[in-house]
Amino acid sequence: MKKAIVLLSGGLDSTTVLAIAKNAGFETYALSFAYGQRHKIELESANKIAKEFGAKEHKIAKIDLRIFGHSALTDEIEVPKDQEISAHNVIPITYVPARNTIFLSYALAYAETVGAFDIFIGVNAVDYSGYPDCRPEFIATFEKLADLATAAGVENQGRFKIQAPLMMMSKKEIIEKGISLGVDYSKTHSCYDPITKDDETYACGHCDSCKLRLDGFKAARTLDPIKYL
Amino acid sequence: MKKAIVLLSGGLDSTTVLAIAKNAGFETYALSFAYGQRHKIELESANKIAKEFGAKEHKIAKIDLRIFGHSALTDEIEVPKDQEISAHNVIPITYVPARNTIFLSYALAYAETVGAFDIFIGVNAVDYSGYPDCRPEFIATFEKLADLATAAGVENQGRFKIQAPLMMMSKKEIIEKGISLGVDYSKTHSCYDPITKDDETYACGHCDSCKLRLDGFKAARTLDPIKYL
Repeated sequence: MKKAIVLLSGGLDSTTVLAIAKNAGFETYALSFAYGQRHKIELESANKIAKEFGAKEHKIAKIDLRIFGHSALTDEIEVPKDQEISAHNVIPITYVPARNTIFLSYALAYAETVGAFDIFIGVNAVDYSGYPDCRPEFIATFEKLADLATAAGVENQGRFKIQAPLMMMSKKEIIEKGISLGVDYSKTHSCYDPITKDDETYACGHCDSCKLRLDGFKAARTLDPIKYL
Repeated sequence: MKKAIVLLSGGLDSTTVLAIAKNAGFETYALSFAYGQRHKIELESANKIAKEFGAKEHKIAKIDLRIFGHSALTDEIEVPKDQEISAHNVIPITYVPARNTIFLSYALAYAETVGAFDIFIGVNAVDYSGYPDCRPEFIATFEKLADLATAAGVENQGRFKIQAPLMMMSKKEIIEKGISLGVDYSKTHSCYDPITKDDETYACGHCDSCKLRLDGFKAARTLDPIKYL
């Protein structure tokens, strides 16, 4: 059985990716990050989801991007609400410097230690928020790097694959794909600024991530099963 | 004044690189890692060295590569002693999966937050120990990745430079260069398996790193000022 590392935040996209990897016949090794993010609730989701999809392992790497500062997701900067999503034009304040490069680097280390050559990541260049490290050319270059960076790559040139199956899908298509693969989206979290009240977590409904998600469910003519404020 | 991130382990090579970056007129931001390495003494060296060379900042990023296991530098595997150094042929047991990819990813995040475009790293393809992530093609590909991965790169195509000034130098040449720039090598540590006795640290003299270092000083016709067992 071929092994794959799946970067799993516990959000809508990465959960769908885990379902896709499993459906493609991979034995999955899920990897999440505790990186000083506001939305730690994601990590609990990630753990439940990894179990549900029968991941062989689920590792949470603690990394502290706050030592470098500068992002709404790790700092005390306010998460922007109800703004126009200007895909492809402006890089938003929620951008975390070099985040996907760091995430993929860890995934590569993990892949090499378990003998995996496939790394799945839920980046998307359609309904995305303008992050540079979500683009196809970034993914293609990291794939090249993986072969050069590792002992496994040197010994197996061209075998590392950075799999980004959502790259060209709309949010609507992602949700439809996930539903067809049995994803229970009530267990996923996407909000950049969730609020917990009486042990229940509510999405804000107004940050970029909530807006993209809600628009996706609307387009898929399905109700989003999570709770909004 | 142009800014540069300098990956600083506190060893002979990275200390020489810091001196080179300073001499080239950069304002330096030193970055070290606490990654579960055996030779933590390096981090203390790194801190003293960063101060001595007037680094603007010195950050230590805590990362736990032990969650993935598999290396003599982070695990309980014995460090090999007195072995033939088979440069370019066999990847040694001291190889840490994707280590330089992870280190450079953090350096990239740091660079973007302080507005630096130059990242200095002390990799070497001559007197090295056969690590894939020390080769020129790895460095060149990471440089390309840096432009694609970041907001700063997208807005300033081609500006990121991964500077590896030691790449083509022999250990002898590195030591001579450092001495000419005022490096005090008594403050550097290279040993993979140092021993502390009565508050003094001694290098083992027999691991790959010690052997390369000792051969370098011999070739440079200079005494290595650190203490060996």
